[in-house]
Amino acid sequence: MTQLVTETEGDQRGNKGLVRAAVAGATGFAGQELIRLLSRHPNVTITMATGSQATSTPRRLPSLSKIWDGTVVPLNAAAFAADAVFLALPEAASAELAPVLLASGLRVIDLSGAFRLRDDAKRAKFYPATASLPAGVAYGLTEFELDAIKSARLLSNPGCYPTASLLGLLPLQRAGLLKKGADIIIDAKSGISGAGKAATGRTHFSENHGSVAAYNPFGHRHTPEMEQALGQGVTFVPHLVPLDRGILSSMYAHLVPGTTAAAVTEAFERAYADAPFVRVTGDALPEIKHVAHTNFCDVGWKVDEATGRVFVVSVIDNLVKGASGQAIQNFNVMYGFDQKTGLL
Amino acid sequence: MTQLVTETEGDQRGNKGLVRAAVAGATGFAGQELIRLLSRHPNVTITMATGSQATSTPRRLPSLSKIWDGTVVPLNAAAFAADAVFLALPEAASAELAPVLLASGLRVIDLSGAFRLRDDAKRAKFYPATASLPAGVAYGLTEFELDAIKSARLLSNPGCYPTASLLGLLPLQRAGLLKKGADIIIDAKSGISGAGKAATGRTHFSENHGSVAAYNPFGHRHTPEMEQALGQGVTFVPHLVPLDRGILSSMYAHLVPGTTAAAVTEAFERAYADAPFVRVTGDALPEIKHVAHTNFCDVGWKVDEATGRVFVVSVIDNLVKGASGQAIQNFNVMYGFDQKTGLL
Amino acid sequence: MTQLVTETEGDQRGNKGLVRAAVAGATGFAGQELIRLLSRHPNVTITMATGSQATSTPRRLPSLSKIWDGTVVPLNAAAFAADAVFLALPEAASAELAPVLLASGLRVIDLSGAFRLRDDAKRAKFYPATASLPAGVAYGLTEFELDAIKSARLLSNPGCYPTASLLGLLPLQRAGLLKKGADIIIDAKSGISGAGKAATGRTHFSENHGSVAAYNPFGHRHTPEMEQALGQGVTFVPHLVPLDRGILSSMYAHLVPGTTAAAVTEAFERAYADAPFVRVTGDALPEIKHVAHTNFCDVGWKVDEATGRVFVVSVIDNLVKGASGQAIQNFNVMYGFDQKTGLL
Amino acid sequence: MTQLVTETEGDQRGNKGLVRAAVAGATGFAGQELIRLLSRHPNVTITMATGSQATSTPRRLPSLSKIWDGTVVPLNAAAFAADAVFLALPEAASAELAPVLLASGLRVIDLSGAFRLRDDAKRAKFYPATASLPAGVAYGLTEFELDAIKSARLLSNPGCYPTASLLGLLPLQRAGLLKKGADIIIDAKSGISGAGKAATGRTHFSENHGSVAAYNPFGHRHTPEMEQALGQGVTFVPHLVPLDRGILSSMYAHLVPGTTAAAVTEAFERAYADAPFVRVTGDALPEIKHVAHTNFCDVGWKVDEATGRVFVVSVIDNLVKGASGQAIQNFNVMYGFDQKTGLL
Repeated sequence: MTQLVTETEGDQRGNKGLVRAAVAGATGFAGQELIRLLSRHPNVTITMATGSQATSTPRRLPSLSKIWDGTVVPLNAAAFAADAVFLALPEAASAELAPVLLASGLRVIDLSGAFRLRDDAKRAKFYPATASLPAGVAYGLTEFELDAIKSARLLSNPGCYPTASLLGLLPLQRAGLLKKGADIIIDAKSGISGAGKAATGRTHFSENHGSVAAYNPFGHRHTPEMEQALGQGVTFVPHLVPLDRGILSSMYAHLVPGTTAAAVTEAFERAYADAPFVRVTGDALPEIKHVAHTNFCDVGWKVDEATGRVFVVSVIDNLVKGASGQAIQNFNVMYGFDQKTGLL
Repeated sequence: MTQLVTETEGDQRGNKGLVRAAVAGATGFAGQELIRLLSRHPNVTITMATGSQATSTPRRLPSLSKIWDGTVVPLNAAAFAADAVFLALPEAASAELAPVLLASGLRVIDLSGAFRLRDDAKRAKFYPATASLPAGVAYGLTEFELDAIKSARLLSNPGCYPTASLLGLLPLQRAGLLKKGADIIIDAKSGISGAGKAATGRTHFSENHGSVAAYNPFGHRHTPEMEQALGQGVTFVPHLVPLDRGILSSMYAHLVPGTTAAAVTEAFERAYADAPFVRVTGDALPEIKHVAHTNFCDVGWKVDEATGRVFVVSVIDNLVKGASGQAIQNFNVMYGFDQKTGLL
Repeated sequence: MTQLVTETEGDQRGNKGLVRAAVAGATGFAGQELIRLLSRHPNVTITMATGSQATSTPRRLPSLSKIWDGTVVPLNAAAFAADAVFLALPEAASAELAPVLLASGLRVIDLSGAFRLRDDAKRAKFYPATASLPAGVAYGLTEFELDAIKSARLLSNPGCYPTASLLGLLPLQRAGLLKKGADIIIDAKSGISGAGKAATGRTHFSENHGSVAAYNPFGHRHTPEMEQALGQGVTFVPHLVPLDRGILSSMYAHLVPGTTAAAVTEAFERAYADAPFVRVTGDALPEIKHVAHTNFCDVGWKVDEATGRVFVVSVIDNLVKGASGQAIQNFNVMYGFDQKTGLL
Repeated sequence: MTQLVTETEGDQRGNKGLVRAAVAGATGFAGQELIRLLSRHPNVTITMATGSQATSTPRRLPSLSKIWDGTVVPLNAAAFAADAVFLALPEAASAELAPVLLASGLRVIDLSGAFRLRDDAKRAKFYPATASLPAGVAYGLTEFELDAIKSARLLSNPGCYPTASLLGLLPLQRAGLLKKGADIIIDAKSGISGAGKAATGRTHFSENHGSVAAYNPFGHRHTPEMEQALGQGVTFVPHLVPLDRGILSSMYAHLVPGTTAAAVTEAFERAYADAPFVRVTGDALPEIKHVAHTNFCDVGWKVDEATGRVFVVSVIDNLVKGASGQAIQNFNVMYGFDQKTGLL
């Protein structure tokens, strides 16, 4: 079932054939963005889009009219005529569905948190619906996990906050520039689409216009995901800011004594020299506006050599690089396409 | 029950005593604004604030902490120890409660539409829960209904769109400058608080940020309210714009042939010479920002003498002049206080 | 100079070769959007991007990093090594430059208003810098001017307000459904990017956040552009609304007596049956959000059969369909590419 | 010149007479807010409002029409017929004007940073225009400096960021709960009015809508102001968020080992038991919306007992509690009025 439907010579655009892709959970924010992006991907044919439940009513997506005019059908695990399935579902639904699809030989790209944590105890605490980690799972932070992603059967797409924050911190950590045991503070600001499509008091326009709010200090489940990648504890507090799409993550860390600003610059530039979707901006600090509606992550920083501190800022579009765009970037890696295919 | 608790000589601030006021429906947008304004009114003591239902859970209003620290109690028609009751309730609740309160001798200021339409057929169509118009009802467009308001037992506070629009059109209509039978187009733009406090797809932040939407063309129930005051038909289409508080009403009309721009100016200036809350701005067209969080209505206009057309713009804060502020302005008139008391 | 640099067989993507395109005025809102779009156009190579003046300082465009990493150079009419030049310049600069480029054999796509008005007197009034209309000029409202666009040497791209408004009105006008001589009111709402990139009191964040403002009633120069296309007078008032990108145009017109709602629907559906970028939504009125960052124009409407009135709503992204996107759509028509190339 | 013009018995509103107040710099954001607030202050008569320069053109303030209809006149140090002068001027202008006014016997309330830093070296670095600190200067963080404020001749009003941040940290510092020498991180988010009224690329609507930006990490001059009050170093990074008015300050600190959450709560509640404008919200974290257009500061927090960390959130309206409102609160203390006078 996972063979490419068409195996051609490929052309100068890197086309190595047409992959049949399905999207489960196509009516949420991330799901619609997936459909929008996949519909213009030159190596993809969308063979199915489903709602989040077996009882979902079939419907069209008016905002995608003349982009993708298919019908979103009820979810049915047995009916995916596809090579790869993107899951834009609540984590419990992903936890249940992914193993079934994998057993059928499909490759799965899961946008939920169900398969992100390797530590059983932490996963049981934050994602209790996940029975176990399937074989062949890879954590899809593309820029740092290329090899694992290439061969992944189950791609676990990172959370939006971890994507922004880790792309800002990992270059320093990998270069050995972060002082061991010192505080790392991550103060992140997210647009309201990060709170999901459900209409709640929290997502009401009047609650957010002209306002900013911190939430869930110390307790957000993206914290263990970041700690797993960094190999150390972090203090993380997310905030909601009055915009629709985008995350800006502000990070405060201590450098190994003697680290120069030049060494920090070199670490970032080396980390992303070949990354098509990360742009390093140095002390021209990046802003959400520059990455909204794109798959870019822009990273800037400022070193205070006198005190050995570094301030890093990272920005992404939470629905693109923080969800659907990175999922497709990972899909491209999994199938041997250029990372940029369908994303520029 | 309606006697003033204190009957004094009054002082230089126009204080003629302390009126006991109650608010029914104190947890919605308009209700909280009422509490906020009444709590600083020098001639008012808030004796009760209730929820919208007999089963409402007693609660505090955290955003009014240190302004008004009372408890919002369940609604109970028999329990209003007050001289005047403000109803910030759904229309059906107002339609039921107002007659009971009136029968008990209280004066009622109703912010719903239940008692705005005098024509029985139209009222039956748009506000079917209203059995009949009680005696002593007045339509509370303060600037044009002063005498009726003074003696009103039941004050029917105007709708937000009619307040903005009528204050822009009535000066021309009263001066006889509007061409008989010609089109009047009212294109109004409202902040999202106008859609109410309920969390719906329509009030979700992500649906409104970066967007504008027209709704209910030809069919909005504020249309007959405006037609009643103007004595002619209008075409009215409301729009939602991505801000929290405020309405801008754009009005297009034809002038009686030969009307000069100077005559239009004179009509506006005469109409509002003594109005403390209407500011005429002429061709410096008013903007919502100038009236947000105030009880002002700013009105500007532009005459095209060549074609006999006039364009009028009127702006208000929908929760103040378009609801709670005007209600208190009317309360002031009903009780003989200066219109501005508690509102500047 | 206008020959295609590469003349190939073309491929299944409709590639008929690579056109050398230049952009003059690449640092403004429309110019940057042009660069962004052209850089991913499969049939275009950007050979030059210039500032607005001969004295512009060479600079990069950081927000387009890793999309287009070229340098914006000073403007020099003699130096355009291109087949087609897009002018995103102030109208006076376009008025001066376009004839020079045309004389050199280049095809020109002008985004300013310099060449939009055919009537000499009106053009002299609204665009006084334009000496005369060059031969081979076409008005680029793509959906209604396909034949003229194909052979145009100078493509005059429509204004943002006329694009939105005419796409909402022309289907009715062409079908003969608009009542002769009756009022047409166009009340348009634009995001602040429509006010340009210059920092002024008008474009200050604090002047616009939480606000709406009408401006230039009766006097905007897009009025004669709309009247030219419609063949009748209109009343047009633009407004600024607190969002970045997008226009919603609300239109009020009278139908020929007896016109049914079905006839209106048929007129719209027929007009746009083959239009890849216009989506008719009927009484599901369109919203800016659905077209932001796309080249779509969504059109909805509501007929009041009792009074013979029609209300039409049209939405576009002012920087895409209202400027750079439509310019590229026209470019595609001029060069025989599929209209959608590079735009989906 | 500083005697009260009217010395009465006072009344039940705490009226101890009428103070003649002048405002220098009345056309900026803070200056207009001062006029708005002072015009309704029962113990104040505004005797003069000036522009920022001797050459300022006399003008009215249309947005304050029917609130204050005076004329803003050119700045003239010799012409202040007032008891107290509020300076809403650029710091260099304040540095020059304040000593002149003090020498004339007037009391001065300065909203600039000119007189905030006591350390000569730091003041010379950050506010070089200030020659020296006049006698009788008090730092006007009302809740912590009551005694100094009462007798102040020159009141130096705190910066907006320090107001929000210090009100969140000082209760812990004064109670001895902050771990000595440990990091304090202050990540603050400000509305765009904080960037001032000048039209710049930074204040353009399109640069901020849908965006967030960090600026000036490690280098903002509010840092030494906070360090002076706290008696220790802090890491401070301000951000701009897409709203008009308001600051949310997120603070990360370490507690003395063994500190309980209850001890933290007690410290906050004790600090603000008598403060009319600080509301402690505990783990119901405060939001900007709750304090916009008010003089309140809301403070909430969360303790992680396991790691000894505390996260504090503080919100204010930067133009009210962060500037003009606190200035009037201080004025009230200086003249013996109730702190709340004119501010509720």
